[in-house]
Amino acid sequence: MLLVSKSEIERRVARIVSAITSRGLEGLYLASPANIAYVTNFIFTPTERPIAAFIDSGGEVTLFVPFLEYEHALKYSYADNIVYYEEYPGEVHPMVFIGGKLREMGFEGMRVGYDVDGYGHVFGYRGPKLSDVLKASFSYERDVVESLRIVKSNVEIELMRESAKWASYAHRLLQDYVRPGALEDEVSLWASAEATIAMAKALGERYRPWGWTSGARASFRGQVGPHSYYPHSHNIHAVIKRGHVLVTGATAMVSGYGAELERTMIVGGPTQEQEKYFNMMLEARRIAMENVRPGVKCSDVDRVVRRYFKERGIWDMWRHHVGHGIGLEYHEAPFLDVGDERELKPGMTITIEPGIYVRNLGGFRHSDTILVTEDGYEKITVYPESLEDLIIEA
Amino acid sequence: MLLVSKSEIERRVARIVSAITSRGLEGLYLASPANIAYVTNFIFTPTERPIAAFIDSGGEVTLFVPFLEYEHALKYSYADNIVYYEEYPGEVHPMVFIGGKLREMGFEGMRVGYDVDGYGHVFGYRGPKLSDVLKASFSYERDVVESLRIVKSNVEIELMRESAKWASYAHRLLQDYVRPGALEDEVSLWASAEATIAMAKALGERYRPWGWTSGARASFRGQVGPHSYYPHSHNIHAVIKRGHVLVTGATAMVSGYGAELERTMIVGGPTQEQEKYFNMMLEARRIAMENVRPGVKCSDVDRVVRRYFKERGIWDMWRHHVGHGIGLEYHEAPFLDVGDERELKPGMTITIEPGIYVRNLGGFRHSDTILVTEDGYEKITVYPESLEDLIIEA
Repeated sequence: MLLVSKSEIERRVARIVSAITSRGLEGLYLASPANIAYVTNFIFTPTERPIAAFIDSGGEVTLFVPFLEYEHALKYSYADNIVYYEEYPGEVHPMVFIGGKLREMGFEGMRVGYDVDGYGHVFGYRGPKLSDVLKASFSYERDVVESLRIVKSNVEIELMRESAKWASYAHRLLQDYVRPGALEDEVSLWASAEATIAMAKALGERYRPWGWTSGARASFRGQVGPHSYYPHSHNIHAVIKRGHVLVTGATAMVSGYGAELERTMIVGGPTQEQEKYFNMMLEARRIAMENVRPGVKCSDVDRVVRRYFKERGIWDMWRHHVGHGIGLEYHEAPFLDVGDERELKPGMTITIEPGIYVRNLGGFRHSDTILVTEDGYEKITVYPESLEDLIIEA
Repeated sequence: MLLVSKSEIERRVARIVSAITSRGLEGLYLASPANIAYVTNFIFTPTERPIAAFIDSGGEVTLFVPFLEYEHALKYSYADNIVYYEEYPGEVHPMVFIGGKLREMGFEGMRVGYDVDGYGHVFGYRGPKLSDVLKASFSYERDVVESLRIVKSNVEIELMRESAKWASYAHRLLQDYVRPGALEDEVSLWASAEATIAMAKALGERYRPWGWTSGARASFRGQVGPHSYYPHSHNIHAVIKRGHVLVTGATAMVSGYGAELERTMIVGGPTQEQEKYFNMMLEARRIAMENVRPGVKCSDVDRVVRRYFKERGIWDMWRHHVGHGIGLEYHEAPFLDVGDERELKPGMTITIEPGIYVRNLGGFRHSDTILVTEDGYEKITVYPESLEDLIIEA
């Protein structure tokens, strides 16, 4: 089954308990949706109604939810206790309610860590911080769960591998459906719908979808032709034309986990310039990957790629670091970035995606999700990478 | 044109300046993506890389972005200044960088308001609060922009009306495509794709999409059959069957604005019980709507509907308040909730959506987006509401 089991959740909670105990904390408050999913298996859509999890040093997990999520949480979460407040903003503000409950639970005056001091200001939320509504000795301990999440368990790796398969399938459909004259939406929506439906039919109840309209997705996000120059472009309803550079993105959500697959494609025969930057991008990737193995610092992988950009005289085309951790969140720690001094460890899943951005021409970026192994790495996303395999006949 | 103009943004900034001046503030820091869009017109996908806007008491708007968003922001935003940091986490943490820039800009020791103290902890973000990196007299002033956003301008209302049309179109396709035996995904993905492509072709560059895969969307989000009992269900790849109650949701993003349209549908002839709760839901809606007019408190609209549930003996089927403001965010202030004492004013756009949730049977909820007018309200979403129009022949 492609599901996170109760025993998996219990192992995670036990490790968190030992981390908070060693820090001298009596409790840990979590308001990041991914952290809450990590310790309770409850998947929800964040709104202005705060949802939080609290873990005490005995390993008891309490989930705070609005009334309208109470039975949903009872059905799907593994929390030991589920406590609900009536509504947001309500006659008693939810954060005041949560502070009061923690007081009842005996945490006034205790040492309490948090990942967010209150609530993350989603939608129209407005309200006090947790530290405004409970007198305790608070500290910012966002790295407790982060440091566990960066190394994946066997189950998590299995979910990432399953995600990668469906991301590849969605991407294959995307590539098959590209044609000059098509709107980016036509290509990406039909490919994504078809892949999602196939996923639902093939996997059935052996996995859990995530989100309101979850499944597999492959798209361009506006990175079509010269507009692919913007690394985080949005959909612009672009019309695909012969000569365009396309930068894609594909993923699939499998019980909360998603791998990332991105490719650069060229519509019609590439120009010499397009071929040049495409090959430099492949070279930057190769350099990044050959540096991935346990013990290497994340920062050093970024440094060797930065050096490559400078040596080849394309530093003005650099826009972002080499990659990021990925799992329950699409971008998570660790970061292959000069500012992240952590060492790579077996079990980490990270993206490798150096990009070259050429004004008036476009972006050149592949992204693969890799698993750090005992002696190097393994690609979790498998999809053709060479220019000849990524030329769209037109 | 269905776009937010520079002069519209300037009017908003001028009103914010007068609000912060009257509160004795020298500057306002905004990290909520919707608030940033409101004052700069910059639409972006929030990641671990912080993005923030700062408005000084002279009306100058500075946008802080990561390098990879710099030219994207130059192209699409109306901010007066755009300042970029290199990367997250980077050799200098982005929040430390922003604090330093605000110091250079002269805000050390000044009175600065914020909507979020730092950054909203999106994805793998970890870092200090704004109040940790700049010595200033800080206060939580999230209501400054909120209080402007709750009353819509003419342009905003026009965008909401356009959204409502496409939401209706997507919903019509959804209703047409429902059939017993179909996966919820098949129905919703094809309807959403078709409506989005029609929207792109009909409107072209007269509007801006929003988000990576934006457009129109109509779906069930798992609210199929007995699972429609969960008000905030997620997609469960449900198979639609004769006798099911279905609760839908449709919207379309038009230059950042979206209306909400939801309907309860019955597959095949309804049972007496289904008909009973459907009609009670219509009655709760009618009571809510007849109370909507300028001067009425938001809380009172919720109270009359709560009273109806109690009088009819269905309080155990109550799960949430009557509705919420809607515009740049799908849920925003004001809330038709006992905890919101604000008065309704002309120009507010809010949803009316009392719901009845019956265990083992399902949910009964329509949602319409309405505009408060001088003498009452006007429905912005227009779609059949009666049971006979919402029975799926099967």
